[in-house]
Amino acid sequence: MITTILIHCPDQKGIISTVTGFIHGKGGNIVYLDQHVDQQANAFFMRLESDFDSSFFSETTFRADFEKELAKRYAMKWSLHQAGVRPKMALFVSKYNHCLYDLLSRFNAGELAVDIPFIISNHDDLRPIAEQFDIPFHHIPVTKASKNEAEDQQLKLLEEHAVDFIVLARYMQIVSGKVISRYPNKIINIHHSFLPAFAGAKPYHAAFKRGVKIIGATSHYVTEDLDEGPIIEQDVTSVTHAHRIADFIAKGRDLEKIVLARAVKLHVQRKTMVYANKTVIFY
Amino acid sequence: MITTILIHCPDQKGIISTVTGFIHGKGGNIVYLDQHVDQQANAFFMRLESDFDSSFFSETTFRADFEKELAKRYAMKWSLHQAGVRPKMALFVSKYNHCLYDLLSRFNAGELAVDIPFIISNHDDLRPIAEQFDIPFHHIPVTKASKNEAEDQQLKLLEEHAVDFIVLARYMQIVSGKVISRYPNKIINIHHSFLPAFAGAKPYHAAFKRGVKIIGATSHYVTEDLDEGPIIEQDVTSVTHAHRIADFIAKGRDLEKIVLARAVKLHVQRKTMVYANKTVIFY
Amino acid sequence: MITTILIHCPDQKGIISTVTGFIHGKGGNIVYLDQHVDQQANAFFMRLESDFDSSFFSETTFRADFEKELAKRYAMKWSLHQAGVRPKMALFVSKYNHCLYDLLSRFNAGELAVDIPFIISNHDDLRPIAEQFDIPFHHIPVTKASKNEAEDQQLKLLEEHAVDFIVLARYMQIVSGKVISRYPNKIINIHHSFLPAFAGAKPYHAAFKRGVKIIGATSHYVTEDLDEGPIIEQDVTSVTHAHRIADFIAKGRDLEKIVLARAVKLHVQRKTMVYANKTVIFY
Amino acid sequence: MITTILIHCPDQKGIISTVTGFIHGKGGNIVYLDQHVDQQANAFFMRLESDFDSSFFSETTFRADFEKELAKRYAMKWSLHQAGVRPKMALFVSKYNHCLYDLLSRFNAGELAVDIPFIISNHDDLRPIAEQFDIPFHHIPVTKASKNEAEDQQLKLLEEHAVDFIVLARYMQIVSGKVISRYPNKIINIHHSFLPAFAGAKPYHAAFKRGVKIIGATSHYVTEDLDEGPIIEQDVTSVTHAHRIADFIAKGRDLEKIVLARAVKLHVQRKTMVYANKTVIFY
Repeated sequence: MITTILIHCPDQKGIISTVTGFIHGKGGNIVYLDQHVDQQANAFFMRLESDFDSSFFSETTFRADFEKELAKRYAMKWSLHQAGVRPKMALFVSKYNHCLYDLLSRFNAGELAVDIPFIISNHDDLRPIAEQFDIPFHHIPVTKASKNEAEDQQLKLLEEHAVDFIVLARYMQIVSGKVISRYPNKIINIHHSFLPAFAGAKPYHAAFKRGVKIIGATSHYVTEDLDEGPIIEQDVTSVTHAHRIADFIAKGRDLEKIVLARAVKLHVQRKTMVYANKTVIFY
Repeated sequence: MITTILIHCPDQKGIISTVTGFIHGKGGNIVYLDQHVDQQANAFFMRLESDFDSSFFSETTFRADFEKELAKRYAMKWSLHQAGVRPKMALFVSKYNHCLYDLLSRFNAGELAVDIPFIISNHDDLRPIAEQFDIPFHHIPVTKASKNEAEDQQLKLLEEHAVDFIVLARYMQIVSGKVISRYPNKIINIHHSFLPAFAGAKPYHAAFKRGVKIIGATSHYVTEDLDEGPIIEQDVTSVTHAHRIADFIAKGRDLEKIVLARAVKLHVQRKTMVYANKTVIFY
Repeated sequence: MITTILIHCPDQKGIISTVTGFIHGKGGNIVYLDQHVDQQANAFFMRLESDFDSSFFSETTFRADFEKELAKRYAMKWSLHQAGVRPKMALFVSKYNHCLYDLLSRFNAGELAVDIPFIISNHDDLRPIAEQFDIPFHHIPVTKASKNEAEDQQLKLLEEHAVDFIVLARYMQIVSGKVISRYPNKIINIHHSFLPAFAGAKPYHAAFKRGVKIIGATSHYVTEDLDEGPIIEQDVTSVTHAHRIADFIAKGRDLEKIVLARAVKLHVQRKTMVYANKTVIFY
Repeated sequence: MITTILIHCPDQKGIISTVTGFIHGKGGNIVYLDQHVDQQANAFFMRLESDFDSSFFSETTFRADFEKELAKRYAMKWSLHQAGVRPKMALFVSKYNHCLYDLLSRFNAGELAVDIPFIISNHDDLRPIAEQFDIPFHHIPVTKASKNEAEDQQLKLLEEHAVDFIVLARYMQIVSGKVISRYPNKIINIHHSFLPAFAGAKPYHAAFKRGVKIIGATSHYVTEDLDEGPIIEQDVTSVTHAHRIADFIAKGRDLEKIVLARAVKLHVQRKTMVYANKTVIFY
């Protein structure tokens, strides 16, 4: 049984040997270890995958002992994840269908180890895709006046289904602090530019106007600062003077799909840690 | 004998057939033709390479006829370049040596069909490299107080040597409008970021702070708006949380070298046209 | 009304001006022209998009005159395609679903200007996806013994539906010369390696064994020489020692999807020409 | 004082905690740890950078204790490298100058922490570059008849200068087993193709003929099987039908330089381990 442990704490001498010794003492075999030290910030990060014999392993005991013997001593923030537990992922969409198609196709193909309890959209346009893939679809319109109430509806659904994280698959609305604060570093957005270039609306138009030779897409955790959250993944593709805005948009669709899917996978596999508005990604 | 012609004018019906018919009529064989229409701006661009029999071809007559029969009629801006004429390229540097080494190595290896009459620097540090490659080196210090006079010295050298274009190979000074206006779209800069992200000073530090997953470099023609001139070439490379600022700088050096060298080659080969603060690049 | 013309003939002086003059004389406005000369092979290639006033344009007359006045004179192979005519694309699949999902999602999203009369598979596994996207699905099993007959069934379907081209979306069977000869340069395959490296079966296993640092995918027209047809598109992605074969396969899926989709688009947009077992691609 | 330790042994439970505990016990602070388990081969690899207080650290004692307490117990192959010890790198070249220029420029710029006792070439052409950078140059011609003797001369020089590793910077000769066996996994070659595609002579010509859309370069350790040694680094760049062989060669030069320089840096930084004709690279 593979158990993943994520650790974040101030850097101190001997952490690695203490933690690995602890796991060894508990009968675990470490099959993967990656660590990172941010020397400037004196911060330590570690991701471990350990194999425990499930007939002897008690998660409760392990958690209690880890907390008592290690976490307190080193002032650790830590989390433990059992393989096989599928997080619940809610999808928020508007009218663009390419990211939705891509994520649902991957889900159907078995690429994403999640459950998808529902899709929320502020428009009804993509309902047929939800039906095609047999996922419940909730149309919750959002206007300036209704936004507050709409978000209450969203939160109600999120809580009823015990959703673990949210993916904004080209959801064209700004999510307010009310929702963000309930899902800190648990809302993944895809922005259709190479951030920090072209934050905000209509990035392909802005990129075209500037005459860049490369366009990009960025997936990041959502914070209250629009398009300024911790970046999870970015990718780019070349463009030339011969590409019109429509070509930017078409080329961008492929980027957005790939970049968002990669970010979702990294999140699901517990390979992301957030610190100082940046991510540590253990590939 | 290969002759390159660049044409820019309002888009009109029949331009291509008229121009190609004209060249055919003058005995030329078109070996390369690329064109671009910006439909939004109703602008037409064309680059032709034609092979003329040099025993029959008179450049003077051709120019006069082209002007009379085509250029006036279509309101063309055009230029004609004979293969074998090497433009004169001045290099401006400060203290970083990687772009200078790269350009001089390419020059020595025969990759760049230019003459290099001199190198100008505001510091004396890179003189040994100039000597190593046997290129005259002029140390012209620049302070706030001396800048105006320093630029006069630069202009004097540029004019004495009939320099065609200038390459700022990590020249850490802002070039003033006095120089720029004498070399419009003829000063090539390398900026060590993926513009428009991280314009201005210390882009690697800014990229590190923002936690981007990709860094870039951008070569552009210098205009009076700092880092906002027409982009010629861009490229990027991946970074991770494990890279420190020093790693960004080291990885960036390779990008800067490659991107600047590509831009210089495109310029030398007359493959760049500038329009509306953007470039048309005929690869 | 936009008309695309593709021309291939021996290189001769004056072709461009003659062709563009002809189109101009027929009232066409050339909005795009790209040409290529293979000087070694003395071969000329051109792709033109021209705008004709549909109230005056007769395709029949144009074709006849082009043939008489140009094609014979220059020994041209040429073709003419009206915008708005959607080619018919048949899909062949086996058990892998990612390319099928990707193409059908793009088709539904309006990215591919084709009709898809049916999907053929040698297994029944992917029928639910065909149903999900409402495309007829024909299960035609292929064994050594039944292959000849199975291909007759395939050909019957292809002809009944007047299919223009075939996409092998991870169809795990070798297509015989009987089918290939009926669809020369009209069968597009995706091979899951960077050809010519790792042709044949199990390329990801071979790549893993060799310890390459980059894996790729290649889309090509199918010829009777397995994996040796004209290459349309290739792309690559990085791998490390930490990736197992399963990771190669997962990363490869994204490559295969993208590379195949790009090749299909280029084919549909008449941007590919084949010559000497290579392609000329007018991007 | 930073000490780098590389470990390779059969995978066993508890290795990481034992090794990290040992280092901790010796007063070391682990600032970097990367490990890899090849589960199929049951092989374990680890790279550690530890900070020791140099006033208390005895390398001799450490080595002896490590050998006694760890290496024997776990059947480790291991090595220890003190920061600041510069390995001696010999350069072998023929007539192409781009890789030589690139490496010497980086060396002069302080990018490569090595000493370069000499350059060997089978031609005299590049002597001026050696002189330009003030490195001893030995012209050792190689013919079929003289090869054995030439290699003896090479080996004599390599031994006299206690060379640690050799870089074949486009050295156009096949190195025989006599030399290879003296420098196992210590001779770095750059091959101008994306191996295993186009091994052997004239890869750009072969790539052109095959009509690939991407060309590459590969840096690998030299073994007695030509172009089949463990791959250290690869990179690629796009080409189109419009590129002639001369363009492939020109674009390839930039690839070769970058890929070779990256491989040399990885080797110098002790980030490469070789196993089963593959490399583990701890980036």
